[in-house]
Amino acid sequence: MADATYDSNNIFAKILRGEIPSHRVYEDDAVLAFMDVMPQGPGHTLVVPKAPSRNLLDADPTTLGPLFAIVQKVARAVKKTFGADGVTVMQFNEPASGQTVYHLHVHIIPRFEGVPLKPHSGQMEKPEILAENAGKIRAALSN
Amino acid sequence: MADATYDSNNIFAKILRGEIPSHRVYEDDAVLAFMDVMPQGPGHTLVVPKAPSRNLLDADPTTLGPLFAIVQKVARAVKKTFGADGVTVMQFNEPASGQTVYHLHVHIIPRFEGVPLKPHSGQMEKPEILAENAGKIRAALSN
Repeated sequence: MADATYDSNNIFAKILRGEIPSHRVYEDDAVLAFMDVMPQGPGHTLVVPKAPSRNLLDADPTTLGPLFAIVQKVARAVKKTFGADGVTVMQFNEPASGQTVYHLHVHIIPRFEGVPLKPHSGQMEKPEILAENAGKIRAALSN
Repeated sequence: MADATYDSNNIFAKILRGEIPSHRVYEDDAVLAFMDVMPQGPGHTLVVPKAPSRNLLDADPTTLGPLFAIVQKVARAVKKTFGADGVTVMQFNEPASGQTVYHLHVHIIPRFEGVPLKPHSGQMEKPEILAENAGKIRAALSN
């Protein structure tokens, strides 16, 4: 399948290798979670497996249990941290779906009554805001 | 947590018990997949765990690996079946996020270049269309 190629120079691969900075909220042997720099809402967090795959379609099925266990933990943590009314979880596969970085990732977005999602890949958030939000989520995850 | 209540009379619980019909594409001991009756695109499929939980926030973490293994299988199958360019995976938690049925479920929606998602909870699809699409997805899953 032509679209199942993995380019190890994608931005999340660079984040995983520590080649570019990120605001990390959780890390274990299999999974990393960090702040989306163009959040669709306050506390928008991404969870990625360390194993390389372009998206869900070509992922090793054994990586999915550990990945979504952390998605759940982060979803609970951001809801609590930001006093959200709900949480949206989204995962995009290929450009037609809105995927823009080709390393499997899951979006976790706190939601508030009457507040629509901001557009995907909108404005860059200030680094100090991302750092502050990451700190709050880390604290919630460690409780 | 007040919103983590589970009402066993929700429509997906009734589908799981066979009390109301559905267009099923996959079933095992832990998971059921069936057609969304108000699809946001052709082939819109839902995957639910059989274990009761309101949404991802209160789910037993051990149910997530088997659930998302089937989400992956169905995502691959609908992409192939409908010749889609991509696949959107979404999971909503609480009304602020767009959740309307309170049994954990994952949306899998084939996507096509330049075609936006139809609104959530829009028009009911004709049963014969849903039945035909379910048959095609079952065939793809059994290959």
